[in-house]
Amino acid sequence: MRLSKTFIKTLREAPKDEIAKNGALLSRAGYIHKELAGVYDYLPLGLLVLEKIKTVIREELNAIGCEEVSMSALQNPELWEATGRFSDQEVDIWFKTELSSGGLLGLAPTHEEPMVNMMKTYIHSYKDLPAYAYQFQTKFRNEKRAKSGIMRGREFLMKDLYSFHTSEEDLDEFYAKVEKAYAKIFERLGLGDSTYETFASGGIFSKFSHEYQTILPVGEDVIYYNKDKSLVFNKEVFNKEVLDEFGAHESEFEPTKAAEVGNIFKLKHKYSEPLGLKYTDESNTAKTVYMGCYGIGVSRVMGVIAEKFADEKGLVWPEAVAPFKYYLVGIGEKGSLKASEIYAGRESEILFDDRDLRPGEKFADSELMGIPYRIVISDKTLESNSAEVVERKTGEKKLVDIKKLFV
Amino acid sequence: MRLSKTFIKTLREAPKDEIAKNGALLSRAGYIHKELAGVYDYLPLGLLVLEKIKTVIREELNAIGCEEVSMSALQNPELWEATGRFSDQEVDIWFKTELSSGGLLGLAPTHEEPMVNMMKTYIHSYKDLPAYAYQFQTKFRNEKRAKSGIMRGREFLMKDLYSFHTSEEDLDEFYAKVEKAYAKIFERLGLGDSTYETFASGGIFSKFSHEYQTILPVGEDVIYYNKDKSLVFNKEVFNKEVLDEFGAHESEFEPTKAAEVGNIFKLKHKYSEPLGLKYTDESNTAKTVYMGCYGIGVSRVMGVIAEKFADEKGLVWPEAVAPFKYYLVGIGEKGSLKASEIYAGRESEILFDDRDLRPGEKFADSELMGIPYRIVISDKTLESNSAEVVERKTGEKKLVDIKKLFV
Repeated sequence: MRLSKTFIKTLREAPKDEIAKNGALLSRAGYIHKELAGVYDYLPLGLLVLEKIKTVIREELNAIGCEEVSMSALQNPELWEATGRFSDQEVDIWFKTELSSGGLLGLAPTHEEPMVNMMKTYIHSYKDLPAYAYQFQTKFRNEKRAKSGIMRGREFLMKDLYSFHTSEEDLDEFYAKVEKAYAKIFERLGLGDSTYETFASGGIFSKFSHEYQTILPVGEDVIYYNKDKSLVFNKEVFNKEVLDEFGAHESEFEPTKAAEVGNIFKLKHKYSEPLGLKYTDESNTAKTVYMGCYGIGVSRVMGVIAEKFADEKGLVWPEAVAPFKYYLVGIGEKGSLKASEIYAGRESEILFDDRDLRPGEKFADSELMGIPYRIVISDKTLESNSAEVVERKTGEKKLVDIKKLFV
Repeated sequence: MRLSKTFIKTLREAPKDEIAKNGALLSRAGYIHKELAGVYDYLPLGLLVLEKIKTVIREELNAIGCEEVSMSALQNPELWEATGRFSDQEVDIWFKTELSSGGLLGLAPTHEEPMVNMMKTYIHSYKDLPAYAYQFQTKFRNEKRAKSGIMRGREFLMKDLYSFHTSEEDLDEFYAKVEKAYAKIFERLGLGDSTYETFASGGIFSKFSHEYQTILPVGEDVIYYNKDKSLVFNKEVFNKEVLDEFGAHESEFEPTKAAEVGNIFKLKHKYSEPLGLKYTDESNTAKTVYMGCYGIGVSRVMGVIAEKFADEKGLVWPEAVAPFKYYLVGIGEKGSLKASEIYAGRESEILFDDRDLRPGEKFADSELMGIPYRIVISDKTLESNSAEVVERKTGEKKLVDIKKLFV
C-alpha cells in the first residue's frame, strides 16, 4: 500500500472520550474510527489486522476438521425462549428491535440457540456425528458501559465454534483437540507467552470451563497462577474447595490482572436438551446430542495485542498480525527511486511511505503504526548498496545489503 | 471438501414457507438455512459462493484504487437526524433499538451518513482528495414482507462504495471508471449477457442514477430496452419527456422484468452539505466535497444467479462463483481409490463425494448442488485410463484422459 494513495492518516489526538490506550492508539494510528462508545469502524489497516487474526484462527480450526458458516444477527425469540435466555432478567445485554410486520427480534449476543436449531436439520443419526461448525460473526451486547476501546464492544467480532457429539467421551476428545488448537493460535498471534488456560466456573453441567487469559494490567479479570503457571484459576473459582481438589495450596499462587481472550465450555446437554437436538444411536434409540462451545474474541484479541505491546512511541504489532511487515521510506532522489523499485511486486508486504513529508515525520508514523520493520533507503545507504533496517520492537538498527532484504 | 466430512446434506424439501425458487433450491442444496423470513444463515458452501462473489468485486474495485473498510451496524441517530433520515416517515425500513444506558440507536440500512462523518476526520484539504472507501457489510432493512429468498433480505450483505471529490468533473471521471469496473464484475459473475446499465430516477441532485438490472422473470422491476439494448430505462423514468431527451421513441422499446443487482449514484452535495464535509482548495477557500455512491447487493447477486441459471435438476453455478469447480465420484474399488488420489492436493477445487451412497444419489446431489463439472471414475472408465466428465450447464458428457483432467 502506498501511503500517498490512502485516505487514512495518523492523528495528533485520539477522540476526547477515548480513555483506553488501545482505542486511543488505534485511532491515532489510523486503524479504527469510533462511532459510539463500544462501537468502532475498521479502517484499511485495521481490517487487515482483523483478517490476519481470522486467518490464523481459521487455519488452526480447519486443521481439526471444523467448517465455517455465517449466521444471522437478527434472532427469532422462540428459540431463546425455549432455553429461558430471551428474558432481560436472564440475559441483561440484549439489544431488541421490533419487526414492522409485528413481533420482537433480538440481535445475537451469541449463537448457541440458532446453531442448535439449525443442526436439527442436519443431525438425525449417530452417522451424522460428530459435527463442528464455526463462524466469525458480529455480536451485539448492550453493555451499560463501554470504556475499554475495542477490548469490550457493544458490537464486536467473535469466532464461535460449536461441536456436536454422540457421547461425553467424544466431546472430551474433541475438547482436547481444541485446547491444542487454541495453544497454537495464541502462540501464532504473539500471545503464547502471556496467555494461560485458566479454570473458570462451569455452570450447571460442568464443574469448570476454561478461559484463555492474557496477562494485562488493564484486564478486567484477576487470575491466580502457580510458579510454573501449570495451574491457573480465575478468581471466581480460587477457593479452598477447588484448590484441595487439585492438591494445591493458596500460598503457592500469585494474583495478576488479565484479559479474557477466549473460552471453551463443555455444554453437554445444556442447549441440546431444551431445544430437542437428538440423534438415534445404532440400536435406533433417540438420545440427546452432547455439545461443546469455543469462543475467541477476535476484535478483543486485536485490542489486547495493541494494548499489551505498545510503547511510548505507539503500536508494536507481532509479525503475524501486522497489516504489513515492512514500512518503506526512500530519502533523496536515488533513495526514493530505489524504494519504488523495491516496492514493485511486494505491495502486500510493504507499506510504502511515498508521501511528500520530511523523513522524521515518516519515522514517527512508522513507529505509531507499529509496523515490524522499517526499511530506509537513502543516497548514503546506497553507497554501500544497502538499506537501514530498524526493528520496531527492539529499536535495533542494521545496514542490510539490498539484495538480501527479503531473503 | 469431502462430503463424508461435512455436516451439510441435501434436503428433500425446502422450508414450507419458502416460496422463492432461489431460497428453496439453496436450502435444499445445503447452501443456506432460513432463520426468519428475509433472514438467512450461510452454510459452508453458501459462504464459499459469497466469498467468491466478494473476491470478484474486491479485485475490480482495488484495481481502480478503492480501499476496503468495515463500518458498524449500530448507528448514532445524530448523524441521520442531520440529513433528516432517522425519521421513520422519511426512511420506513429502520430497525431501531434502545441503548441500556439510554437513547435510541439504528441498525444501518445503508452507510452514507457515518461514512461522510468518518471522512470529516480524514478530508481537510484538496490534497486529501479524491478518496474511495468501500465495504462488504450487513445491512438491516425492516421490510414489511420478505418472500424473495435471499434476493430481498431483512438482513443482507451489500458492497457499498463511496467516492469523494473536489469537483463534479472529478466525480464524473471516477463514475465512468466505476461503470467500467461494474461491467467487468457482472461479466465475471456470469451475468454480463443479461445485466444492463439502466437509467433510473436521480433524486434532487442528479437527473438520473444508474441501476444494474439483470433480466429475470421474478424480478421486482420492469425495464424498457431498445433493440441493441444500448438504451435501457427503469419504468419509473420511461416517459415522453425522458425519451425526447435521448431522441428515442416509445415504440422502439420492449418491457421486461428484471432484478436490480447494483446501483450507482452521483450524490454530489446531498450528504456532504448537511453533514458539513468540506475541503479547502488551493486558495484556502472552504468548499463542499462532491460525492458518489455505488452499491452491489452481494447476497442478492447470489440469489439472482441461483434463480436465473437453475433448471429442473437444481442449481447451475457459473464457474467464477461455484463453491467448487468439480464434483468427484469414484465407483467401485479401483475407481474410488483413483478418485482419492486425484482429490489429494486439489481440496479447494474439488467437492469429493466419498459418501457410502449409490452413484445415482451422488449424481442427483451433484446436479442439485450445481457444481460445474462432475468427474466420475469407475473401473470401466479406468480401462481406458479415463474419467467421465459431465458439464452441469449443458449435460454434455465426454471421456477424458485422467492425465488431462486438469490441464
